[in-house]
Amino acid sequence: MSNAKPLVVIAGIGAGGGTEGASARAFAKEGYSVALIARNADLLKAFESDLKGSGIDVAAFPVSSYAASDVKDAFQKIRTHFAKPSYEIRAAVYNAGNGVFKPFLDVTQEDVKVSIESNIEGTFAFAREIILDFKENSIDPSTGARGFLVFTGATSSIRGNVVTSIFSAGKHAVRALSQSLAKEFGKQNIHVSHAIIDGVIVTPRTKERYNDPEWEKNEAIRLNAESIAAGYVYLAKQDQSSWTWELDLRPAHEKW
Amino acid sequence: MSNAKPLVVIAGIGAGGGTEGASARAFAKEGYSVALIARNADLLKAFESDLKGSGIDVAAFPVSSYAASDVKDAFQKIRTHFAKPSYEIRAAVYNAGNGVFKPFLDVTQEDVKVSIESNIEGTFAFAREIILDFKENSIDPSTGARGFLVFTGATSSIRGNVVTSIFSAGKHAVRALSQSLAKEFGKQNIHVSHAIIDGVIVTPRTKERYNDPEWEKNEAIRLNAESIAAGYVYLAKQDQSSWTWELDLRPAHEKW
Amino acid sequence: MSNAKPLVVIAGIGAGGGTEGASARAFAKEGYSVALIARNADLLKAFESDLKGSGIDVAAFPVSSYAASDVKDAFQKIRTHFAKPSYEIRAAVYNAGNGVFKPFLDVTQEDVKVSIESNIEGTFAFAREIILDFKENSIDPSTGARGFLVFTGATSSIRGNVVTSIFSAGKHAVRALSQSLAKEFGKQNIHVSHAIIDGVIVTPRTKERYNDPEWEKNEAIRLNAESIAAGYVYLAKQDQSSWTWELDLRPAHEKW
Amino acid sequence: MSNAKPLVVIAGIGAGGGTEGASARAFAKEGYSVALIARNADLLKAFESDLKGSGIDVAAFPVSSYAASDVKDAFQKIRTHFAKPSYEIRAAVYNAGNGVFKPFLDVTQEDVKVSIESNIEGTFAFAREIILDFKENSIDPSTGARGFLVFTGATSSIRGNVVTSIFSAGKHAVRALSQSLAKEFGKQNIHVSHAIIDGVIVTPRTKERYNDPEWEKNEAIRLNAESIAAGYVYLAKQDQSSWTWELDLRPAHEKW
Repeated sequence: MSNAKPLVVIAGIGAGGGTEGASARAFAKEGYSVALIARNADLLKAFESDLKGSGIDVAAFPVSSYAASDVKDAFQKIRTHFAKPSYEIRAAVYNAGNGVFKPFLDVTQEDVKVSIESNIEGTFAFAREIILDFKENSIDPSTGARGFLVFTGATSSIRGNVVTSIFSAGKHAVRALSQSLAKEFGKQNIHVSHAIIDGVIVTPRTKERYNDPEWEKNEAIRLNAESIAAGYVYLAKQDQSSWTWELDLRPAHEKW
Repeated sequence: MSNAKPLVVIAGIGAGGGTEGASARAFAKEGYSVALIARNADLLKAFESDLKGSGIDVAAFPVSSYAASDVKDAFQKIRTHFAKPSYEIRAAVYNAGNGVFKPFLDVTQEDVKVSIESNIEGTFAFAREIILDFKENSIDPSTGARGFLVFTGATSSIRGNVVTSIFSAGKHAVRALSQSLAKEFGKQNIHVSHAIIDGVIVTPRTKERYNDPEWEKNEAIRLNAESIAAGYVYLAKQDQSSWTWELDLRPAHEKW
Repeated sequence: MSNAKPLVVIAGIGAGGGTEGASARAFAKEGYSVALIARNADLLKAFESDLKGSGIDVAAFPVSSYAASDVKDAFQKIRTHFAKPSYEIRAAVYNAGNGVFKPFLDVTQEDVKVSIESNIEGTFAFAREIILDFKENSIDPSTGARGFLVFTGATSSIRGNVVTSIFSAGKHAVRALSQSLAKEFGKQNIHVSHAIIDGVIVTPRTKERYNDPEWEKNEAIRLNAESIAAGYVYLAKQDQSSWTWELDLRPAHEKW
Repeated sequence: MSNAKPLVVIAGIGAGGGTEGASARAFAKEGYSVALIARNADLLKAFESDLKGSGIDVAAFPVSSYAASDVKDAFQKIRTHFAKPSYEIRAAVYNAGNGVFKPFLDVTQEDVKVSIESNIEGTFAFAREIILDFKENSIDPSTGARGFLVFTGATSSIRGNVVTSIFSAGKHAVRALSQSLAKEFGKQNIHVSHAIIDGVIVTPRTKERYNDPEWEKNEAIRLNAESIAAGYVYLAKQDQSSWTWELDLRPAHEKW
């Protein structure tokens, strides 16, 4: 393997309090530098500063949308900032889809467009850039992988429901993509996974929404972003004899 | 129930030789008038003439794309041509997605865009128009339904694979939508189904591709569009005590 | 095809008011003679008389259990009573599993044994006898089939839940068997299907349990056994170009 | 949490070379004592000696079958040998099912009986004893669990196929049980998981069968038992905010 520093590219960071933010810290702890992609430039910059304050080698790449051209532009900047041969993109975490939950007839054309763009067009573009980089990597002898890519899914990835028509359509599409990629690129030593997050994650936003200290405190009824990130690190470290495509994660007391 | 003539709207007719063409004839035999939507105006017109020649009350509504606005326009024309109270849209068959089968890195941005438009944007727009009409219908006492909508899926609706990244993403999305709709609108007496077609259908195009009289003749190794259409009619006639969301259809000798 | 009279073998008749009873009448209407298998000899005899009163060519074969030897014995009697070349077994409906719904720690060893016997041992024995007969049949030109076998499943066939540990274990096993058989014997022109019944069927027993005329009357909230049986007849008549392995059936207003 | 030494009970050890053997070593490394259950007393004793030689606190409990009474007996002996308050059963790995792969008509009644006994009767009995012990445990503050139970599944757990009728029936049943238990006992702080092992594991037996040094050496085409065991340890250590019910594991180059 090369002496390049491993880089993880993480897309879909909001305020940094969710799965993707926790993934940034978790992969940094494993020795990765971190490239962040998100739409909200202000939040992204604040989170970047935060990580820098923890001594993490990080840079933020805001995008104005997840249209394919914007995603491609972000990657061009990432490749310039974290340039070879000093760096190599060796891991990626993707969760750019935004959640629209509405009765079907309230779903607007605009909802459909935005959802498609972030969930599908953006995901395809992101996966393409990542795979292109991974293919040029050497094989890590401890994992047998040229790179590891994980998509954050949800219960809606495997089930449509009454207010999830557009959300579950996007999530199903991403899951299908992740399976296609796992099958096509496993043979080329690229590890692609999909996580089904079944429950509510504690984030600044959900804390505000629930506004219930009991809920925050009771770890058996909601997810910690750090625990999900720990799962992603476990997946990234699996050796090639035993790779996981899909795992689910839910609180111990979740009804499902 | 009203005395209006029942109308079936069928989207995704190519040369008329496939599932949607056969569905047109099958629903016509059940007393439906037929509205056809497709992109290829010439093929569509030819098929319309063909059906008219068989005495079917039919009209064709070509669209230049499955963008939401085009789909909406088509429905405005349908509602003018087959106007209430003489007609009521009571059934619909949708299969507008085009199949792109390529290794992932050969899938272009354009492939993604077209696939998303026909499979997802178009499907949402189509479903919206259909549901809006269905909601105004009276309940058919024999089925308990205000209307019946079926989506034509494929093996790729439930499985991603090495050359199906974009095709299976779209098909998974449609399946998710169909399940969301079935759950949300079943309660409102609207019957939504999804069919998984697992195998190759005999159509003018596949006949040419296979160029093998044995394949055409051996009914155990490929699907008849008429048999699929018969399945759709069975679904459309189910009484409300026992509605099917999903069924698979495959040739007897298919390996799966 | 031979001139033999087609025989349907139906296992799991209780008082005749459920799916299997309705299937007996539905297949009889299609020209089949009927062989009935069940444990409760008294109920079985009463139902046999009932069918005879409707002019149906029927005979009942009570079993003391669904142990393999008992099932085999029943078939020997069936083959004697409905002997070749006058008769040919050409269809079968199986649903012998009894439903035990208890918290896991209340499930006794006896519950497990009985459930395994009826759901698994009995199902394998039944399927074996049926397939052995089917293999000797000629191919029906209208369906391409030597025979049709359908298993009645439930939501528990695809999902374990809090009080369904033993019930869902048995139902999952039956579903797996049905899929294995469909794949192995489709190639030999034997059609095997599985139905997922998702909801409560109106039977004498459930009428008593619910004791609610509204529930009985509202067809959108519970299943009619006759409608399920109509589905089985549809499946039995599918031509070989388009066979269904699995379909679900549920009331229009069911929450799922 | 108590000061008792944690004990893992592992059922289905053959020569110790497979998943269960590797799990014994992996949990021992995490500080667990080990109780082994298997049918082949000689192989079991040899493996026990082997583990003792590595300094592991282990005892073997051969059973003559996986009939419920034999499983219960084994647990009585385990509870005597590893008695409270010195020990507490806090983890369990189960894989007692034997694999019968035959065309359906070659599956004998005996095959069905043995398969049912080891896969279903034995699994229910094993799960019952484990859950009864777990319920009395205190909650481990690091995982939120009173205990962790994992079932080793296979591709046949989710798919029936041409030579897997009885094997997949048993494996589907175990998977259903694992899901029912996960749902019922998650709320009681008991973590139940299911692993889908999709591929061939390197064991003394498969080495002999393949007899191909290339196959042994190429980690991308077969599974290491140690890697599966590492997955089980990861699952056992998940904190209660993010428990996994199911994950799949397969070699990087596996076709699926």
